[in-house]
Amino acid sequence: MLALGIDPGTAICGYGFVELRGSTLRAVDWGAVETSSKLSATERLKIIFQDLDRLIKQRRPDIVGVEQLFFNKNVTTAMTVGQARGVVLLAAALNNIKVVECTPLQVKQSVVGYGRATKEQVMYMTQRLLNLSGKPQPDDAADALAVAICSLHAAGADRMAVPDR
Amino acid sequence: MLALGIDPGTAICGYGFVELRGSTLRAVDWGAVETSSKLSATERLKIIFQDLDRLIKQRRPDIVGVEQLFFNKNVTTAMTVGQARGVVLLAAALNNIKVVECTPLQVKQSVVGYGRATKEQVMYMTQRLLNLSGKPQPDDAADALAVAICSLHAAGADRMAVPDR
Repeated sequence: MLALGIDPGTAICGYGFVELRGSTLRAVDWGAVETSSKLSATERLKIIFQDLDRLIKQRRPDIVGVEQLFFNKNVTTAMTVGQARGVVLLAAALNNIKVVECTPLQVKQSVVGYGRATKEQVMYMTQRLLNLSGKPQPDDAADALAVAICSLHAAGADRMAVPDR
Repeated sequence: MLALGIDPGTAICGYGFVELRGSTLRAVDWGAVETSSKLSATERLKIIFQDLDRLIKQRRPDIVGVEQLFFNKNVTTAMTVGQARGVVLLAAALNNIKVVECTPLQVKQSVVGYGRATKEQVMYMTQRLLNLSGKPQPDDAADALAVAICSLHAAGADRMAVPDR
């Protein structure tokens, strides 16, 4: 089962493909779509959509995992992130890929094993679970890989064994 | 010049086509894309995108006008509206139609002539400017028609005459 995790944003939109084969998790590909602040919001959304659409068509994930975001920041930020999130969900829908939404709590529980884990703990365990030699770069890609792991759990790939911690 | 105005929303997304020929404004078509709350957010965004994409391909507007929203409501609403707004902007971008963003102030100034106009005044003047016998339904479509008028102004169709008020 192949999951594409996404950390939506307009300036930088992280993505990570994680494959579950047997009980082994493997990071297949990761990175980020970055768009210049010199472009209009519309142009930036178009780039994000087209890049993700291309990645989805190329790798055909079984599921797309997107974090459910809760903001205590200002509403303008929520609106902007919402716009990016909208085109991410649309890219999945137009390719008929099931979307799995994970709360931040679920991501922490999936990756670290408890919901109060820090961002650093999530990063560290993502690296370990995927058996990577270094921290995935940029941070947004590491976040996306964590969401991909969570979405595999949430999609019912629950029998997947989690390595000893 | 043909403008498509849009009032973005997930449950109901209003649209209105306004044509400017010479100094005459004409409402060509209006309505709303409605989606059921029983559907997932992803499915709803897909319907909104596909319906708007079809309308754009059918009528080929010169510009797409979208209101710039400022929320003092909660961030969850901003996120949801942002998602709808994202797919609206994307539908325009993928069809290579220029997007014109209008602030609520600009919409009021364009349609009523002053920025502190009430919603009812905007509705009334939209109906008069477009020479319609009744109030366009639903409200979201009336809002979208007002945004279309504003986007024609903002796009530099400024020489358009405004009827006596």
